Amino acid sequence: MRVGVLTGGGDCPGLNAVIRAVVRKGVVAHGFEFVGYRDGWKGPLEGLTMPLGVEQCRGILPRGGTILGSSRTNPFAVDGGVERIRATLAADGVEALVAIGGEDTLGVATRLAELGVDVVGVPKTIDNDLSGTDFTFGFDTAVNIATEAIDRLHTTAESHHRVLVVEVMGRHAGWIALHSGLAGGANIVLIPEVPFDLDEVCAQVESRFRSQYAPIVVVSEGATPKDGAMTLTGGDTDAFGHVRLGGIGDQLAKAIEDRTGKEARSVVLGHIQRGGTPTAFDRWLATRLGLHAIDAVADGEFGVMTALQGTRIVRLPLSEATGELKVVSAEEYAEAQVFFG
Amino acid sequence: MRVGVLTGGGDCPGLNAVIRAVVRKGVVAHGFEFVGYRDGWKGPLEGLTMPLGVEQCRGILPRGGTILGSSRTNPFAVDGGVERIRATLAADGVEALVAIGGEDTLGVATRLAELGVDVVGVPKTIDNDLSGTDFTFGFDTAVNIATEAIDRLHTTAESHHRVLVVEVMGRHAGWIALHSGLAGGANIVLIPEVPFDLDEVCAQVESRFRSQYAPIVVVSEGATPKDGAMTLTGGDTDAFGHVRLGGIGDQLAKAIEDRTGKEARSVVLGHIQRGGTPTAFDRWLATRLGLHAIDAVADGEFGVMTALQGTRIVRLPLSEATGELKVVSAEEYAEAQVFFG
Amino acid sequence: MRVGVLTGGGDCPGLNAVIRAVVRKGVVAHGFEFVGYRDGWKGPLEGLTMPLGVEQCRGILPRGGTILGSSRTNPFAVDGGVERIRATLAADGVEALVAIGGEDTLGVATRLAELGVDVVGVPKTIDNDLSGTDFTFGFDTAVNIATEAIDRLHTTAESHHRVLVVEVMGRHAGWIALHSGLAGGANIVLIPEVPFDLDEVCAQVESRFRSQYAPIVVVSEGATPKDGAMTLTGGDTDAFGHVRLGGIGDQLAKAIEDRTGKEARSVVLGHIQRGGTPTAFDRWLATRLGLHAIDAVADGEFGVMTALQGTRIVRLPLSEATGELKVVSAEEYAEAQVFFG
Amino acid sequence: MRVGVLTGGGDCPGLNAVIRAVVRKGVVAHGFEFVGYRDGWKGPLEGLTMPLGVEQCRGILPRGGTILGSSRTNPFAVDGGVERIRATLAADGVEALVAIGGEDTLGVATRLAELGVDVVGVPKTIDNDLSGTDFTFGFDTAVNIATEAIDRLHTTAESHHRVLVVEVMGRHAGWIALHSGLAGGANIVLIPEVPFDLDEVCAQVESRFRSQYAPIVVVSEGATPKDGAMTLTGGDTDAFGHVRLGGIGDQLAKAIEDRTGKEARSVVLGHIQRGGTPTAFDRWLATRLGLHAIDAVADGEFGVMTALQGTRIVRLPLSEATGELKVVSAEEYAEAQVFFG
Repeated sequence: MRVGVLTGGGDCPGLNAVIRAVVRKGVVAHGFEFVGYRDGWKGPLEGLTMPLGVEQCRGILPRGGTILGSSRTNPFAVDGGVERIRATLAADGVEALVAIGGEDTLGVATRLAELGVDVVGVPKTIDNDLSGTDFTFGFDTAVNIATEAIDRLHTTAESHHRVLVVEVMGRHAGWIALHSGLAGGANIVLIPEVPFDLDEVCAQVESRFRSQYAPIVVVSEGATPKDGAMTLTGGDTDAFGHVRLGGIGDQLAKAIEDRTGKEARSVVLGHIQRGGTPTAFDRWLATRLGLHAIDAVADGEFGVMTALQGTRIVRLPLSEATGELKVVSAEEYAEAQVFFG
Repeated sequence: MRVGVLTGGGDCPGLNAVIRAVVRKGVVAHGFEFVGYRDGWKGPLEGLTMPLGVEQCRGILPRGGTILGSSRTNPFAVDGGVERIRATLAADGVEALVAIGGEDTLGVATRLAELGVDVVGVPKTIDNDLSGTDFTFGFDTAVNIATEAIDRLHTTAESHHRVLVVEVMGRHAGWIALHSGLAGGANIVLIPEVPFDLDEVCAQVESRFRSQYAPIVVVSEGATPKDGAMTLTGGDTDAFGHVRLGGIGDQLAKAIEDRTGKEARSVVLGHIQRGGTPTAFDRWLATRLGLHAIDAVADGEFGVMTALQGTRIVRLPLSEATGELKVVSAEEYAEAQVFFG
Repeated sequence: MRVGVLTGGGDCPGLNAVIRAVVRKGVVAHGFEFVGYRDGWKGPLEGLTMPLGVEQCRGILPRGGTILGSSRTNPFAVDGGVERIRATLAADGVEALVAIGGEDTLGVATRLAELGVDVVGVPKTIDNDLSGTDFTFGFDTAVNIATEAIDRLHTTAESHHRVLVVEVMGRHAGWIALHSGLAGGANIVLIPEVPFDLDEVCAQVESRFRSQYAPIVVVSEGATPKDGAMTLTGGDTDAFGHVRLGGIGDQLAKAIEDRTGKEARSVVLGHIQRGGTPTAFDRWLATRLGLHAIDAVADGEFGVMTALQGTRIVRLPLSEATGELKVVSAEEYAEAQVFFG
Repeated sequence: MRVGVLTGGGDCPGLNAVIRAVVRKGVVAHGFEFVGYRDGWKGPLEGLTMPLGVEQCRGILPRGGTILGSSRTNPFAVDGGVERIRATLAADGVEALVAIGGEDTLGVATRLAELGVDVVGVPKTIDNDLSGTDFTFGFDTAVNIATEAIDRLHTTAESHHRVLVVEVMGRHAGWIALHSGLAGGANIVLIPEVPFDLDEVCAQVESRFRSQYAPIVVVSEGATPKDGAMTLTGGDTDAFGHVRLGGIGDQLAKAIEDRTGKEARSVVLGHIQRGGTPTAFDRWLATRLGLHAIDAVADGEFGVMTALQGTRIVRLPLSEATGELKVVSAEEYAEAQVFFG
């Protein structure tokens, strides 16, 4: 049996570990052959392939990124996309697909499965916001990178009596902010699920300074102020006359500085959160998700994805994973408040 | 209400995070006062205390070890131990205890609870072998340190065409070996649960060399050969005439070298696995276990410990945690075999 | 003898190591007492002190920031500043000062020395641009953080076929960019010393893609385009309607994307380069600079600073250090070009 | 012109960075072709080659080990060894050799150069004990790994009121012990250059405990007691009946425990000090040594090695490097004593 493998959406530490596990177990335990499709759904759509065997997977376990490349191509947005995919698979003699990706990639997988393509999914989102799985791989790496950054910023904040605002990933869910904020000992954590009150944030900042400590604020890139309360009146210009005016992190730092009179600086962690070698947890999780995905293929159980529940890997209907975003609950956010303010 | 806190047994990254969470939430949310008992059960036994408030917990979140100190003192092995503990608690006005520790510490807590002392436990074992909880804090840190060491050893093994044997912690359970071996891409993983066959290990070593790669063997400190098959015929002497003859890692390296004729070296990770700053995961887990433990005290629910199940923290009877060791199942070990040999 | 110690300017990993070494050797070897002045020159100006002895220096070696705090206060910009400093020192019984800081802090020290204040300097600049010393502490830490970030970005750049622009510190000198660019295997490195040609940069980007690899561009925050060739025509707006328009890193990414049609992203490392624990090299260098500074005080040799030359610590006239900026020479920049383009 | 490259002796982080720089500059700037000789001098002796061009050097900069492999083969210990090397070079059309290695490898290079073989050396020793160069690559990486281990051990030592003995590399020179001991805040540092007095060590241990802190002892693998004062009376047996009796670290821990009655544990860092990714400093140094080595070849200047002096790379006669070991001077050791005891 020939099996195709692809990775779609933003890259995430652990993708290569999934690929390696799928191929290794497929070859060694099930006698499968593999075709690597390049750049997400673009691969089967345009017939972009690469050789994929045990040899290609040597040494990739600790490496970030994906040897298959990635893209955000959606075959349902392309005329005759599904037919072209079917044609590619047929031409390559590929009978089943393992699709590794997030909401979009698995959304396509779900619809293809409904149309009769034999596909198994592996969930991937650095934001940890997919339902059905306790954690997604890549998340632990991102949280560790953010936590290490917060650790570093404590001393510089204290030395200069400054507010430091750290913008982390999380467009719709505040998991990275909540976990790294808790782990890094942040003083304020703002997440997309709960619009923040700027006055309250400033009051917490001032209270923190009154007890002789400098505050660290962690903010998800997708966090927003209540009632659009934070209007911007123009950015600073730097030494070269460039306007410095960025995302929520930069704006929040400026707003805090304006209102409290305390120096505030922002750090936007950006892409370093998703690059590089995965943590041990992410390698372990990614490896196990891959092993179980190819077992599902061997069992002929399609239209499912593998997921972590407790310490077990289970199979869930693909539709379940992509139905609803997993966000931080009010209870989980409240639990952390004891450290804030 | 005054609450005593103690930490017992071997230290573990995350102990300070538990203490900080217990104290912070106890003070801020419940209005408790705290007494720190030093050096495990020795503290209440001998009346060794230290001040413990929000101030003492500043800056300790990222620090390894325990500000309370630790010991392996067992009050049940001491004449009148229980009475002396009761007397100390009464003298200090302490109405409840939070005991953070492993099998031994929680075993004492269980018996004290049965004798009417109001105690809540927080499970701690770097080996991850306590029942009732998906993971214990400290384990993730140890696995990351071991994985990073394995990452480092791959290149030196390849460059010198050598076998490298890495001895990791795990006296009764192979969790650290299994997780770090999977995450580090080891070629052989030997655990206490499954006595190993030295001939088979050597065959795997030779097969690995035949495919032009140098093997990495990860071995739990508690792993043993089948039938005592590996008898030692005397150790090497080093340049200073010292006999070099150590634990299972050193012996296994020597046995492999003797039988296969391939150079083999061993690395014993030892105490660096349990020292130092905890990973983000361990800080998050330790913090949450602490928060929920002091909530149990506030609820007047004693004789329980807090535990991780999935992503939730639950309360379990103390007896459940200390009844049976959580070891690697045959199924979990088999799952990983596809990468070995 | 009582000695005052202060730290001025931006913080830098290693400041605490200098303070500890000064105090430790001063107390143990020379029998000195110490006064800690808070927040740079603001301390002696306003009489802000803190106790400073062996006890206060426990555990600070691995910690970033400065336990003394810092500021950019310039006593020469304050009416009667010098007299107020003299008065404070007299009132505190302080006969000599150790001033740890960069161009500004040591510039003040130079002028005070000329006015008869007994001061010894320790050079500090994360940018490594002070003359007279081979390296300054903090620089190695910053370079390692930047290099690790570049390591991480390679895989995400490759996976998405994107240009990644990394903005590092270096307002007037490109040392951090040059060292981290060389160490991280960057494809283009732009420094303040050599205005860059945007067309050439874009040509290098395109050439890199033609050989199937994604380019990493490292740019000093102080780098500028030739002839002001890179004019910005307005920034992007993000999902929240915020204009995203930052420093040279953000602008360069946008300019490259506009001209080459390739996706480009920027990462601005910012304050994480200067926070946190110092590398072993920086701890060693900072410690030795401190030991030799207090020896100069003991020798009654003032108006000097300590500096690294080869592996030796020497004393130089303060004026020498602050006379001229140490920038990347044309020859050193040329040496690295073989890896670029 | 065809140039051969080989790496000999123990591996060291940075070897691949040298190889990459030699090849890159050789191809791009000088138009050379390269032959990779495998496994040190065994390569030209036995005609073991591998292709070596820009392509083979992609991605190797951050990787430990050496893509060429290594060995300790000495062609002068082999009948007709020199003639066989000449014959191989002639057969391969190789006119010049770049030999990267330590005392032994460069010793062979020196003798071959005297016999008319055109060879340029690059110095390599993780112990930093080669004369003529301020630092050797790999050393900074080893010191950072040892320092991080010491950082980790502080908290576990404190928590258990234990002595922790850390054995680091350094058979003849104490550089790694001295630098990591200073950087890690060790309390005692023992080096091969100065035989230690066990009574004095124990007195320092006890004094440290009296001030309520747990001591960290760093010991070079080559350190020895004065007058053979430390005789061993038999090792402990572990839980499996294995005798635990190792090198100087293990023995010293046992001796301290026996004499002071304080629990002592040892950690032997071993091979993790030489494996894995190099620090930024080592990548920068290795890269520059490689660039200058191939320039020497292009200049026709043979019988030399490249070396770091201050921040400049210079060329030195090969004989100079291998004449005398660079050890820790009494003055440098004395400078550090203020932190010990």
